[in-house]
Amino acid sequence: MAEAETLSLVLFSGTDDRLEAAAVLAAGAAAMGRKVNLFLQYWALDAFRKDAIRKDHGVSAEAGPEGAALLRKARETSGQHWVDVLEQARAIGDVSINACALSMQHFELALEDLDPMVDGVTGVAAFMGEATGPITFI
Amino acid sequence: MAEAETLSLVLFSGTDDRLEAAAVLAAGAAAMGRKVNLFLQYWALDAFRKDAIRKDHGVSAEAGPEGAALLRKARETSGQHWVDVLEQARAIGDVSINACALSMQHFELALEDLDPMVDGVTGVAAFMGEATGPITFI
Amino acid sequence: MAEAETLSLVLFSGTDDRLEAAAVLAAGAAAMGRKVNLFLQYWALDAFRKDAIRKDHGVSAEAGPEGAALLRKARETSGQHWVDVLEQARAIGDVSINACALSMQHFELALEDLDPMVDGVTGVAAFMGEATGPITFI
Repeated sequence: MAEAETLSLVLFSGTDDRLEAAAVLAAGAAAMGRKVNLFLQYWALDAFRKDAIRKDHGVSAEAGPEGAALLRKARETSGQHWVDVLEQARAIGDVSINACALSMQHFELALEDLDPMVDGVTGVAAFMGEATGPITFI
Repeated sequence: MAEAETLSLVLFSGTDDRLEAAAVLAAGAAAMGRKVNLFLQYWALDAFRKDAIRKDHGVSAEAGPEGAALLRKARETSGQHWVDVLEQARAIGDVSINACALSMQHFELALEDLDPMVDGVTGVAAFMGEATGPITFI
Repeated sequence: MAEAETLSLVLFSGTDDRLEAAAVLAAGAAAMGRKVNLFLQYWALDAFRKDAIRKDHGVSAEAGPEGAALLRKARETSGQHWVDVLEQARAIGDVSINACALSMQHFELALEDLDPMVDGVTGVAAFMGEATGPITFI
């Protein structure tokens, strides 16, 4: 039986549906006792700005207006934002969140511009050095 | 030589180009003797409704009208829908397809609403528990 | 300590933001001494045509005009196209690039139509046979 390896999640997309899928996968892995490393790049990094993290980030183009309304209703019913799911994952397991240093430059961001849930800023080589298990790009 | 680990495919997108890519990867892995677990979420789950699985689910926004026409022509030439490719993968190998319990709630779906190819409904933690190899998000 | 396994990157999307993210991940993995196998499918394969590889391939729909302008500015500031990043990754490490045989058929392409950086054409089963580590779909 293989032991549970670290799950490395590269968050690239900043739409609420993909961020929610990422949070759910992180929570599921944490519940199974896996270490989870999130690496925030591009539009996902932009979505973690502290003044905007719970704002509407839209959904994938393929959702259409009907799909967007459906997800909004599901979130209202459950009362859970993906940020809450991610915070629960961090409460139950070993879940770290780092911003990609290069994307920080692209978006001209400093760590204090991001939600306090973000643990730090790291380079892609350092991220890869810890990515001994699956690497999932969302 | 590392042995072939289970390939865990998270199907998130419900456009025909990404579903086709997923089916091709699943078939390739099955051909190499790998176990494949598909986990259907969000728009991919919606695409597996039994009354709609072979309907037109569109393609990625980036394809444009020209790309969409090209893929339609390729499918007509080969005579193969991605559903056929997935069925072949299941015929030659150990390929399971499960729907994400949380997405089933979001879309207010029951198992009998889905194509019979879907084996069951499972939670994300159970999916993660079996995901000892690569986890690929499409 | 787990040893660094081969990173298998499936490039599906052909927008410049995702191709740039892929090049950065490949370069980071190569810098850490990992072998990297890129497999070009669909819109990513189309982006590697030798007459178009450095042309504007657009960005993800979610970027919006503001995001597109920001990335263009970042690229001009750094002076680095994602093609340059990928060439550097190949210079420092063991990075192979293969085109998916099935996508080559779809797009009616021959190897000589592609940028010389592409090493060859391969089937998905052969790609899967070498994918003993993480399989990341971008």
